Amino acid sequence: LRQGVPEVIFGEGKSGEQIAGIAEEMVRAGTNVLVTRIDAQKAAIVGQRVPSFRFAPLARTGSVEIAPPPKRPCAPVAVVTAGTSDNEVAEEAAETLSALGLEPLRIYDIGVAGIHRLLHRMEDLRRASAAIVCAGMEGALPSVVGGMISTPVVAVPTAVGYGTALGGFTALFAMLTSCASGVSVVNIGNGFGAAMAVHRMMPKASQATEQPKTAG
Amino acid sequence: LRQGVPEVIFGEGKSGEQIAGIAEEMVRAGTNVLVTRIDAQKAAIVGQRVPSFRFAPLARTGSVEIAPPPKRPCAPVAVVTAGTSDNEVAEEAAETLSALGLEPLRIYDIGVAGIHRLLHRMEDLRRASAAIVCAGMEGALPSVVGGMISTPVVAVPTAVGYGTALGGFTALFAMLTSCASGVSVVNIGNGFGAAMAVHRMMPKASQATEQPKTAG
Amino acid sequence: LRQGVPEVIFGEGKSGEQIAGIAEEMVRAGTNVLVTRIDAQKAAIVGQRVPSFRFAPLARTGSVEIAPPPKRPCAPVAVVTAGTSDNEVAEEAAETLSALGLEPLRIYDIGVAGIHRLLHRMEDLRRASAAIVCAGMEGALPSVVGGMISTPVVAVPTAVGYGTALGGFTALFAMLTSCASGVSVVNIGNGFGAAMAVHRMMPKASQATEQPKTAG
Amino acid sequence: LRQGVPEVIFGEGKSGEQIAGIAEEMVRAGTNVLVTRIDAQKAAIVGQRVPSFRFAPLARTGSVEIAPPPKRPCAPVAVVTAGTSDNEVAEEAAETLSALGLEPLRIYDIGVAGIHRLLHRMEDLRRASAAIVCAGMEGALPSVVGGMISTPVVAVPTAVGYGTALGGFTALFAMLTSCASGVSVVNIGNGFGAAMAVHRMMPKASQATEQPKTAG
Amino acid sequence: LRQGVPEVIFGEGKSGEQIAGIAEEMVRAGTNVLVTRIDAQKAAIVGQRVPSFRFAPLARTGSVEIAPPPKRPCAPVAVVTAGTSDNEVAEEAAETLSALGLEPLRIYDIGVAGIHRLLHRMEDLRRASAAIVCAGMEGALPSVVGGMISTPVVAVPTAVGYGTALGGFTALFAMLTSCASGVSVVNIGNGFGAAMAVHRMMPKASQATEQPKTAG
Amino acid sequence: LRQGVPEVIFGEGKSGEQIAGIAEEMVRAGTNVLVTRIDAQKAAIVGQRVPSFRFAPLARTGSVEIAPPPKRPCAPVAVVTAGTSDNEVAEEAAETLSALGLEPLRIYDIGVAGIHRLLHRMEDLRRASAAIVCAGMEGALPSVVGGMISTPVVAVPTAVGYGTALGGFTALFAMLTSCASGVSVVNIGNGFGAAMAVHRMMPKASQATEQPKTAG
Amino acid sequence: LRQGVPEVIFGEGKSGEQIAGIAEEMVRAGTNVLVTRIDAQKAAIVGQRVPSFRFAPLARTGSVEIAPPPKRPCAPVAVVTAGTSDNEVAEEAAETLSALGLEPLRIYDIGVAGIHRLLHRMEDLRRASAAIVCAGMEGALPSVVGGMISTPVVAVPTAVGYGTALGGFTALFAMLTSCASGVSVVNIGNGFGAAMAVHRMMPKASQATEQPKTAG
Amino acid sequence: LRQGVPEVIFGEGKSGEQIAGIAEEMVRAGTNVLVTRIDAQKAAIVGQRVPSFRFAPLARTGSVEIAPPPKRPCAPVAVVTAGTSDNEVAEEAAETLSALGLEPLRIYDIGVAGIHRLLHRMEDLRRASAAIVCAGMEGALPSVVGGMISTPVVAVPTAVGYGTALGGFTALFAMLTSCASGVSVVNIGNGFGAAMAVHRMMPKASQATEQPKTAG
Ligand SMILES: Nc1ncnc2c1ncn2[C@@H]1O[C@H](COP(=O)(O)O)[C@@H](O)[C@H]1O
Ligand SMILES: Nc1ncnc2c1ncn2[C@@H]1O[C@H](COP(=O)(O)O)[C@@H](O)[C@H]1O
Ligand SMILES: Nc1ncnc2c1ncn2[C@@H]1O[C@H](COP(=O)(O)O)[C@@H](O)[C@H]1O
Ligand SMILES: Nc1ncnc2c1ncn2[C@@H]1O[C@H](COP(=O)(O)O)[C@@H](O)[C@H]1O
Ligand SMILES: [Mg+2]
Ligand SMILES: [Mg+2]
Ligand SMILES: [Mg+2]
Ligand SMILES: [Mg+2]
Ligand SMILES: [Mg+2]
Ligand SMILES: [Mg+2]
Ligand SMILES: [Mg+2]
Ligand SMILES: [Mg+2]
Repeated sequence: LRQGVPEVIFGEGKSGEQIAGIAEEMVRAGTNVLVTRIDAQKAAIVGQRVPSFRFAPLARTGSVEIAPPPKRPCAPVAVVTAGTSDNEVAEEAAETLSALGLEPLRIYDIGVAGIHRLLHRMEDLRRASAAIVCAGMEGALPSVVGGMISTPVVAVPTAVGYGTALGGFTALFAMLTSCASGVSVVNIGNGFGAAMAVHRMMPKASQATEQPKTAG
Repeated sequence: LRQGVPEVIFGEGKSGEQIAGIAEEMVRAGTNVLVTRIDAQKAAIVGQRVPSFRFAPLARTGSVEIAPPPKRPCAPVAVVTAGTSDNEVAEEAAETLSALGLEPLRIYDIGVAGIHRLLHRMEDLRRASAAIVCAGMEGALPSVVGGMISTPVVAVPTAVGYGTALGGFTALFAMLTSCASGVSVVNIGNGFGAAMAVHRMMPKASQATEQPKTAG
Repeated sequence: LRQGVPEVIFGEGKSGEQIAGIAEEMVRAGTNVLVTRIDAQKAAIVGQRVPSFRFAPLARTGSVEIAPPPKRPCAPVAVVTAGTSDNEVAEEAAETLSALGLEPLRIYDIGVAGIHRLLHRMEDLRRASAAIVCAGMEGALPSVVGGMISTPVVAVPTAVGYGTALGGFTALFAMLTSCASGVSVVNIGNGFGAAMAVHRMMPKASQATEQPKTAG
Repeated sequence: LRQGVPEVIFGEGKSGEQIAGIAEEMVRAGTNVLVTRIDAQKAAIVGQRVPSFRFAPLARTGSVEIAPPPKRPCAPVAVVTAGTSDNEVAEEAAETLSALGLEPLRIYDIGVAGIHRLLHRMEDLRRASAAIVCAGMEGALPSVVGGMISTPVVAVPTAVGYGTALGGFTALFAMLTSCASGVSVVNIGNGFGAAMAVHRMMPKASQATEQPKTAG
Repeated sequence: LRQGVPEVIFGEGKSGEQIAGIAEEMVRAGTNVLVTRIDAQKAAIVGQRVPSFRFAPLARTGSVEIAPPPKRPCAPVAVVTAGTSDNEVAEEAAETLSALGLEPLRIYDIGVAGIHRLLHRMEDLRRASAAIVCAGMEGALPSVVGGMISTPVVAVPTAVGYGTALGGFTALFAMLTSCASGVSVVNIGNGFGAAMAVHRMMPKASQATEQPKTAG
Repeated sequence: LRQGVPEVIFGEGKSGEQIAGIAEEMVRAGTNVLVTRIDAQKAAIVGQRVPSFRFAPLARTGSVEIAPPPKRPCAPVAVVTAGTSDNEVAEEAAETLSALGLEPLRIYDIGVAGIHRLLHRMEDLRRASAAIVCAGMEGALPSVVGGMISTPVVAVPTAVGYGTALGGFTALFAMLTSCASGVSVVNIGNGFGAAMAVHRMMPKASQATEQPKTAG
Repeated sequence: LRQGVPEVIFGEGKSGEQIAGIAEEMVRAGTNVLVTRIDAQKAAIVGQRVPSFRFAPLARTGSVEIAPPPKRPCAPVAVVTAGTSDNEVAEEAAETLSALGLEPLRIYDIGVAGIHRLLHRMEDLRRASAAIVCAGMEGALPSVVGGMISTPVVAVPTAVGYGTALGGFTALFAMLTSCASGVSVVNIGNGFGAAMAVHRMMPKASQATEQPKTAG
Repeated sequence: LRQGVPEVIFGEGKSGEQIAGIAEEMVRAGTNVLVTRIDAQKAAIVGQRVPSFRFAPLARTGSVEIAPPPKRPCAPVAVVTAGTSDNEVAEEAAETLSALGLEPLRIYDIGVAGIHRLLHRMEDLRRASAAIVCAGMEGALPSVVGGMISTPVVAVPTAVGYGTALGGFTALFAMLTSCASGVSVVNIGNGFGAAMAVHRMMPKASQATEQPKTAG
């Protein structure tokens, strides 16, 4: 038994109809469904065919929850952003965490140019079981957070910024060469992947569950 | 009390004398020491001034163990390589794990061009609490390992290969765009960082210990 | 006599009318025609002027077969993809093979993150006379296939993936630095070129035929 | 029985002693040996321990021939260079071909800035069963050769040239975007890989032989 | 007196109205006008306000000839392309030459994959006073032409090709590292600049005329 | 009168003898001298011929002070580093400031992974008239400093770090896309240039003095 | 009291409604407002809700001036462009300067290919208290200006040019490696950042005012 | 008869003995010889075997003049540098010009940060029949020179500068996107190629002579 852990559909490059078809099949099989990279238009199509489909517009995810995912025996996972433009990527992470039975703790807009904002949230950061830190431009936030806490830090570069932000590559490279050690990194904008990385790290609910399967 | 968790010295760009000086001070303070990126010549200098200094030539690390690091309550951490040229980076990871009280389980030379070698070690991979996977050239091994196990996978690109291997950047980019989800990545050749990332993920020994401190 | 081997028109940057004009001239000359990189809209225009024109939408190719191309005296050519998003490029290869008298054997969606899918198709791969392997993202599939078979492997990087996939360059570089030796590579998305490379390798039908000619 | 097909040792990053050790073991097992990327100094060390070891200085390869590799039932393979600076890479290809039972036909220094040199060798090119074409700088030779012959063309970019030659990347990219279709490409300077690609294409001697194995 | 040498307007980023305004002023001052990078829509607007305005759609240039430019005392200038997709850039060069009193000799679609096409035009190439050679993809044509003639060769890379063609950078780099010496190069797609470079080289009509002036 | 403002010699690529020759001439003309990018060996040669020559080994600068530079009517200029490996670049800036009559206030090793170190120096930062901030790796320090003070911040990327640090380019790009506004940036490792930028900003001593002249 | 110094809203990625909402709140709080990167359509929306909103179309900025910003005790700041295509970026700088109480002195279209244009404006350049120099293509203007004046020069690369202009990166790199020392640089197209950098350098009006705050 | 026009040997990658051998053969055949990219050590070896061999150390060229090259019927060719570090490349151009019967007119160290130096040499520039302009760092000099004269301008980027100078690529890209039209460009450091380009442009001595031949 998979216990409510979702199967995941990568929505990009698939039509609303294709997504709906795959989702219907999963639902018939009794599995929860998580769709990522889906826009409002496609979501509407899926929603018409899969009634319990819930769309999260900022995260650009959609989900069907046949059964609630079993809650995981650990503290919430901090999902942190440097600026509000990073929130979309963060929401993809947060929605994925929820679908996996992990509780997201959103800590948004605490970028390093106003260091007091970050210092005010230190307690929240310290009580989390891990932190997913999303930042664009110079991508400095994971370094500062990584120096403040000793739990896992997964850094997610975002494509925020212009010119030398290089569509997220500057943040990516900055995070990989972070002066805070033990920070690990996922692809640009890959909020889903960050949540999956944390999923691998966290204790499973009562019984061992495998990785969410992917389809299509 | 820091309970045997080491302080870390980054040896690159420091002279043998400088490293010895910092190490002596730490030893006097009763702390374990881990030096990374240190060559045989510098290690000899340190060894003359710090008697219990142990040099690991392949890993290019050195350490002083005032007290053994408290053993961590978890299964060994797999340290995996695609080819023997990746072993240096893997050894840096393995030595760092040991210094942190984590047991490394070396699984070397199981690259994807001979997939049977990998299949033969599947049991070992599955019983580990996490896997650090080191690969150069096309950097494909973390994708295959990531699809086989559900525990944390930290990928370490190495600079192995020529031409389009781009000094490790091809492996880095391949790992970040891995088709296996939840793989996270550290900088090229950063075996130390991979071990530190796993350190953040694993349960601490009896009492909470912070991050190893750094000096210098 | 050219024996049904087609002339090739590169459709990109040509209008439907231009393609139709060139194709009509070829048909008048009694030659088979293969058009690549043609979309549905242009294909409709060509179809109105060249009645026997057949459009393959996924491959984005079109063809006119005045006479069937003489069958080549060899086993089928495997056309392999890592994921379904690579299928368009694979279809361009498959359609080109068919036009050249070579039989494509489609083996789709066997990417390395689920290595069992690949192992299940090993027999098919082994009986092919060559393999065209299409993959995006980390481009690892040709390495694994190259280690399994001793016949020619032509790798085709695709632009599938985001961020560090670099529009296909990561897959390209990975394939060129593959740890499986004797894999050769063509340009990103160049399914046509891969088929042409295999065409050069395979025995010709009864009498020597030259390269397909190009026009335009 | 492997019938004289060699096992291959990649010499780079291995000491003369390490290479000698691996080679001795192979010789004891009765297998031919091919070492690539070996310099004169290491070769001398191997030569002292493995008496029948033959060093090819320009190719930077060494070999031990326990039994001559069975001759392959096909015409010679052309090994072509644009300028004399490309000859080292070409020799690596030629030596590898020989070790595999394929006859190299050297056609050197026929670069495109003196097109008559190329035209003079057209007959030789046409009678070969395949062509390995090595060129640096603008990497134009495979395009011209590819338009002249209908047999397989494997292009090998070399690091010859300065500034915008980009250490071979300009030639590599030029070859991949060649206007002659069906040219496939290997990594910069990878003469060995080109020969292995041709090895996959050519008919095997009497009985099926696998890929040369690699060790170390 | 400027003797019919045009003033030049760079049309990109200017509206049709702006171009018309500048052109009218020049015409009033009695100067010939050349507009580059102008599309059909803008050209229509200019044409309504400047009656003698002539638009060359393929070249994307427009011109007003108050007085014919004085013919230059030299042989025609060859304008050469590798494929028909390079013709737009070539036409920009040809139209600019004409506006400067130089006669363009168009030699189109003689790319190196069919070397005979080039050889057939050798006489034409040899009688020209200079050659502007436009090529995309691997950009090999200037090397071959440069080896055939001893007059000036100005190479113009074009953005033709996909993937590793890198939007013209591969052709650019190839041309700069050309094995034919004395070839000089202009920016990607800069047919205008190539013609201006030749303008600097060619003898002036009877009296010394300066550079065409630019405006706006 | 130049009032003790130095002439500057860029030592790189000049021999000790050449530098000594230029310096002697300047000294004869009664001007202060600053040499940058000079190593100990060259400095020894200069010191033998120019007796009052003072060498600063960490900064790799040398200077001759005929007359002390007139003190500038402003608070000290903070020279800040993230890690001790950035100190060489910082010292080049500090020595240049001194030679220009500006007082450097060194604030070293306060990188963002230990944010408390930075917070402890906030008072020093706030009383400076400007800050030169040197950082390698992810180059995050200028963003944090820029958010804390309202005086000029000139960021200097350094080549510290490996892999994705890209020899200083990641720090450079991060600083240019800094989320703290009004930070301006100089070339990688250009401590001299940063000091010169601040020199332009600060009030001149009593009478207007021009830019330091350069020679050689 | 903030004395008329504006709060700044970065308009990109925000809807007209969002911008209007933030602006209204600021206006209610009695603060001046500066919006950057806002287009005509969004500006119309803001204008309907915030009556005193003034839109500057070329600069793509909008502002609300509750109270005029206190005039700063210094000479005007030169805002210089190489060509008219650089004027948009220059206007963003000029509008920002005005909002900060600094007087912009526009010196436009004096690029280096017509050096006399620059020489004619030397007096204007010399009487300014600082120069913001905007240039695309080869980005040479700051070097020439930097050699002419001894006051601060902040260089702003623009994305003007095609091909090797690399969307502004060539100008950026040229400015950073300028042979005129003490030139500092901001991100591509960052006219706002250049004005903010000058703001940090210039004397404050009567009483100390902090940095403009940013919101949203 | 070749009338004293030299054959050219590219010295890089050839031993002194190899160069001597080729040169001896040419001398025997009665041809002038020009060797480029030769260092003092190799030159000494050649000098011992070829008595009339003359070495130019700054240019790193060597030559044998059997007969003086026939003087060309045109004004001298300006060879211009921005800084003294560019002089090596300029000397390669100047020596090549001399070997081709063209008179070099050296105009050195007139870079744009001191524009008066350039203005002082305007007369010299104007009377030259063409200008070869060598510059590193931001590569701005050809733009300014190109705007001052109407004769051919061949720009040569040099590798002078650090960091964002990118080993000459910034200068190269800047020159290709120069705002002065009709400037053409050769590879980084290719003084030889620039001279050859001018050779193609200039009138030949009395009788038609071909391109210098190359050997080796
Ligand atoms: N091999 C390594 N790669 C990257 N960072 C390292 C390595 N070894 C140590 N470090 C980090 O380097 C810092 C210590 O540097 P230092 O103070 O210069 O000795 C600490 O942040 C360590 O976490
Ligand atoms: N999909 C493709 N990718 C690359 N080259 C192609 C493709 N299809 C056709 N070609 C080549 O394009 C040329 C025909 O181009 P054209 O003369 O413009 O129709 C021939 O060299 C073909 O071999
Ligand atoms: N460390 C440095 N980095 C960059 N430019 C420098 C440096 N030191 C001196 N310079 C500049 O180098 C030039 C002097 O070069 P030179 O005439 O070759 O001695 C002047 O423009 C100086 O401003
Ligand atoms: N400095 C140089 N840079 C680029 N090409 C050169 C140079 N010197 C000679 N050559 C070219 O190198 C070729 C001679 O090479 P080689 O036959 O190896 O001596 C000819 O094409 C020359 O035109
Ligand atoms: Mg914010
Ligand atoms: Mg799939
Ligand atoms: Mg430190
Ligand atoms: Mg064609
Ligand atoms: Mg191995
Ligand atoms: Mg203008
Ligand atoms: Mg100088
Ligand atoms: Mg040669």
